[in-house]
Amino acid sequence: MKAKLLAVVLAAFCSQAMAQEAAHWSYEGDAAPQNWSKLNPDFMLCEKGKNQSPIDIHGALKTHSQPLNISYKLAPDSIINNGHSIQVNVKEGDVLTLDGDKFVLQQFHFHAPSENTIDGKSFPLEAHFVHMDANGEIAVVAVMFETGKSNPEIEKIWQHIPSQTGQTAALREKVDLNGLLPKNLTHYRFSGSLTTPPCTEGVRWLVVKQPMTVTVQQLNAFTSVMHHANNRPQQKLDGRVIVSE
Amino acid sequence: MKAKLLAVVLAAFCSQAMAQEAAHWSYEGDAAPQNWSKLNPDFMLCEKGKNQSPIDIHGALKTHSQPLNISYKLAPDSIINNGHSIQVNVKEGDVLTLDGDKFVLQQFHFHAPSENTIDGKSFPLEAHFVHMDANGEIAVVAVMFETGKSNPEIEKIWQHIPSQTGQTAALREKVDLNGLLPKNLTHYRFSGSLTTPPCTEGVRWLVVKQPMTVTVQQLNAFTSVMHHANNRPQQKLDGRVIVSE
Repeated sequence: MKAKLLAVVLAAFCSQAMAQEAAHWSYEGDAAPQNWSKLNPDFMLCEKGKNQSPIDIHGALKTHSQPLNISYKLAPDSIINNGHSIQVNVKEGDVLTLDGDKFVLQQFHFHAPSENTIDGKSFPLEAHFVHMDANGEIAVVAVMFETGKSNPEIEKIWQHIPSQTGQTAALREKVDLNGLLPKNLTHYRFSGSLTTPPCTEGVRWLVVKQPMTVTVQQLNAFTSVMHHANNRPQQKLDGRVIVSE
Repeated sequence: MKAKLLAVVLAAFCSQAMAQEAAHWSYEGDAAPQNWSKLNPDFMLCEKGKNQSPIDIHGALKTHSQPLNISYKLAPDSIINNGHSIQVNVKEGDVLTLDGDKFVLQQFHFHAPSENTIDGKSFPLEAHFVHMDANGEIAVVAVMFETGKSNPEIEKIWQHIPSQTGQTAALREKVDLNGLLPKNLTHYRFSGSLTTPPCTEGVRWLVVKQPMTVTVQQLNAFTSVMHHANNRPQQKLDGRVIVSE
């Protein structure tokens, strides 16, 4: 039953992925974010959605919510340049526990400059750790990066960064994902969407407050293979509630 | 400019209202809630939306948010039986101040049994006070009613309750809307949708915790003209955040 559900979810995901390929989207030119909804009827929410991401995080309501419960133990598998971002694929088993539910890490990828901003502040780089539960619901943990000290785990990953769209490389050195997270996982939480087509809503967003650092060289290594900014413009809050500890 | 914007908003509202009329929807039979999205492409969110109302309110995060800032001073105009509910139309000028913005009361109406529930608890009656700001954004204040003591303002309103769909009646006696609200306006807040087609999202929901009362006779006066329950089934939370003081 569980395997069947997973198959359904994967099929839905793959058909979305194929639709995305069929309708080429981009961050520039005719297929830029303001035109995403015109590229494919399945991308309608990119224009019409009232709960879209990214956003400027402001006016958060203080709560007594639980700290993020993340258990990352596995080393990632491979790195792919998909033309939209640099994505790291992982072995299935790393878990975010949220709302009494298990969300399994699917992949993580990067945006430069950051997509979300905090009180108007943009960061040079933002990592998105994408998780999915057994029902196909999505939770994204976002970590901001400022320029400063080197991040040793980013260094290991970037050594294999594919320079051409569509290229994949194995990650031979063991990367510790915990090295991409700050010790203090205090965060903002809100409901939003995928920041890329089809802009699916119902996504739990968890944006970690404390930024990490990368060197200017590490930042440049990313932007030089992307060739363009890959941050979607910010979306209206439309009455959504943001909470934080 | 403001008048122009209002005209645009009203035009959008009226065209929605006409679309609703064109595509007959109901709480029973072929046009029941599970089929709303099939009645009209404009009702798509009723099925596909990830931020739909009503919901069961549970797991609210405690915050230090402001009490509801409501200033109702005007007596309502008229009462209409629109077949979906009993709606009271008001003079423009009653205001809810929220997020530093003015939301003007447009109308209020009733659902029996309640649409939202609190920790699984349903109430016999729920009033929805529908407000709109200058940009057309919507905020709904919901008040629950249990059966018990008579509500004198409901008594005044119900005296004119039209028994036939499409009928309107003037409200000659002065009704004080504050008599429909509890003194303690502690509330739950979340983002949701209209609970009727087109199920528009981006609606600020403010559900007052303390219920009011109506007599069994007052409740029956409503249900006997409606002839059917007019509560949409509950929708999934899909990762949304609910806050409360």
